[in-house]
Amino acid sequence: MKRSDRNTLKWTVMMRRAIQLASLAEGDTSPNPLVGAIVLDNSGNIVGEGYHSKAGCSHAEVEALEQAGKRSRNGTLVVTLEPCCHQGRTPPCTELIIKSGITRVVVGMKDPDKRVSGKGISLLMDSGIEVIENVLQKQVEIQNRAFIHRVKTSRPWGILKCAMSLDGRIALPNGSSKWISSEASRLKVHRLRAQCDAVIIGGGTFRNDNPLLTSRGLSNPEPLRVLFTKSLDLPEEANLWDTSIARTLVAYGPEADKSLIRKLPESVSKQALIESTPKELLKELAIQGCNKILWECGPSLATVALKEKCVQEFVVFIAPKILGGLPAMTPLDNLGFEFVDQAFTSNNISLEKIGKDFVIKMIL
Amino acid sequence: MKRSDRNTLKWTVMMRRAIQLASLAEGDTSPNPLVGAIVLDNSGNIVGEGYHSKAGCSHAEVEALEQAGKRSRNGTLVVTLEPCCHQGRTPPCTELIIKSGITRVVVGMKDPDKRVSGKGISLLMDSGIEVIENVLQKQVEIQNRAFIHRVKTSRPWGILKCAMSLDGRIALPNGSSKWISSEASRLKVHRLRAQCDAVIIGGGTFRNDNPLLTSRGLSNPEPLRVLFTKSLDLPEEANLWDTSIARTLVAYGPEADKSLIRKLPESVSKQALIESTPKELLKELAIQGCNKILWECGPSLATVALKEKCVQEFVVFIAPKILGGLPAMTPLDNLGFEFVDQAFTSNNISLEKIGKDFVIKMIL
Repeated sequence: MKRSDRNTLKWTVMMRRAIQLASLAEGDTSPNPLVGAIVLDNSGNIVGEGYHSKAGCSHAEVEALEQAGKRSRNGTLVVTLEPCCHQGRTPPCTELIIKSGITRVVVGMKDPDKRVSGKGISLLMDSGIEVIENVLQKQVEIQNRAFIHRVKTSRPWGILKCAMSLDGRIALPNGSSKWISSEASRLKVHRLRAQCDAVIIGGGTFRNDNPLLTSRGLSNPEPLRVLFTKSLDLPEEANLWDTSIARTLVAYGPEADKSLIRKLPESVSKQALIESTPKELLKELAIQGCNKILWECGPSLATVALKEKCVQEFVVFIAPKILGGLPAMTPLDNLGFEFVDQAFTSNNISLEKIGKDFVIKMIL
Repeated sequence: MKRSDRNTLKWTVMMRRAIQLASLAEGDTSPNPLVGAIVLDNSGNIVGEGYHSKAGCSHAEVEALEQAGKRSRNGTLVVTLEPCCHQGRTPPCTELIIKSGITRVVVGMKDPDKRVSGKGISLLMDSGIEVIENVLQKQVEIQNRAFIHRVKTSRPWGILKCAMSLDGRIALPNGSSKWISSEASRLKVHRLRAQCDAVIIGGGTFRNDNPLLTSRGLSNPEPLRVLFTKSLDLPEEANLWDTSIARTLVAYGPEADKSLIRKLPESVSKQALIESTPKELLKELAIQGCNKILWECGPSLATVALKEKCVQEFVVFIAPKILGGLPAMTPLDNLGFEFVDQAFTSNNISLEKIGKDFVIKMIL
């Protein structure tokens, strides 16, 4: 094996480890990305590891370099994302890297923000540091696809989740849906919520199901619970009004009767939207720092969200049950297609077996 | 390992081989079961193998014993199904076994027909032959579940097949459904047809899709194509009327205008039913020798078939597509359930990935 091949393999192995470190904070770093870093000393031994645990806390590079201390001199830093070069809530990482005496930086992917992308790398190179780029780039991009999507579109990555029977029903004709999927699947939904920054429902789901919408403690803090409603004429009693467990936001459009706002509990946040559309709602949630949101709404809102490109991932729990029912609910309303070729489709599909159910995930 | 354990293992291994032999004729033996047999000589070497290839042809035991010839003396016969002891289209197998000098018979399962079950085994034991029963019984029962079901209920095993999108749609609101599933899935459907004795559609599918309904040559003869219709007012041109490729049966109920029968092509079989129900149709198809049939009909007929217990297996092809559509077709109509607990369900579920699609099979 040639020396250069051996090194390529080494950076790949180290980058994989850095990705693993980054994933430890999944669901906790928004609006920031997931980042992991490793410092190798001059002989190639791991002398520091770190990951970005939360916005406002140290960056991954800082954690790893602090752990390595003097051993980083003439060493290598392996980091999933291009180090920042601007003063944010924490000082620029490039400065610290240059000071540390690191002579080589291995980077997974550039900063997706076009305005700063490449600047961190240039700064390092200008200081005489060797930079190896795009190591396991695809994997790093997948890990941060929510963050990348938010940076590029100013809207969080949207996941639409539904649970249906083997004959495509999300409820019986009378609306009954408790429970189509198994307990194991419901636990999986809690885990899914824990990975998201917000969970969104519409007025129908709110009134019919009165859901709790928490991750049942799997995430701390719990994701923001968002009620997206046209009318502010809402019930006085509801699980979402108890903000001691999780925060709640009521987002409403210009058509809502604003005089009703005062009837809502004080502890519930209120957000007026200039337009009552999923697009506008997500724009606002991006501003509030959400990288990833979960749609747990009924068919009509889900359909509009899908049409407005507010869904990047469709997760379907399929239970081995036959429910039947012409007037029964199905996951989506009319999308206006005339030919099957027009259907949303994707090559990015995965399947998991959860308890008795199957979970099919499609990245649009 | 004790000698008895060694023998148990040996019979299991041989029975597995006999099951494999039996499967070679899958879809070809109706109304008979699938049967495989192996003859071992006195030293335990395989000296004969056989399977039942077609109704009217030799039974598996006969094939294996003929191949073994004199070497079957003091040997063992391993056979998936209890040997018959009655004169059918072929002479009773028990007679031949006794004559052959076989001293031990290993049987997978008893004849499911209560009237003869155990009689073959008794006859062998009365002749001093050692009989070991129920070896891999469950596997043999699974292999012959269609035959067993037909013997017990006088109706063939029913498979309901549908192809739907990830959002549970079998067509767009305008009826368009070409093609929801992939080419690989459609080939799988041809294989499924080849394993069945008949393929059933209703008048709606006949008029809208004008299907060919063949296995595209995978099975010879092709399965019987059954048009189950209330009205005999049928189009003059249709793929099903070309009986040079495959036989066609038109089954109609008492409400049909019988004067229209003469308008149907002569080569097409006609069958009056005393009642226009899936139950009556299947009863008739059992009489005509069908062990296994495939429902390829639309939602209304599928729903009635399911309600009348004419579906034992639900096979759903799920394509990674989102079709949408409130008025769009879903696999089934209302089953009248009020609670999710009432839904048809099962622990017997399997999944296969075919091309881009998933196929979920549920045995009811």
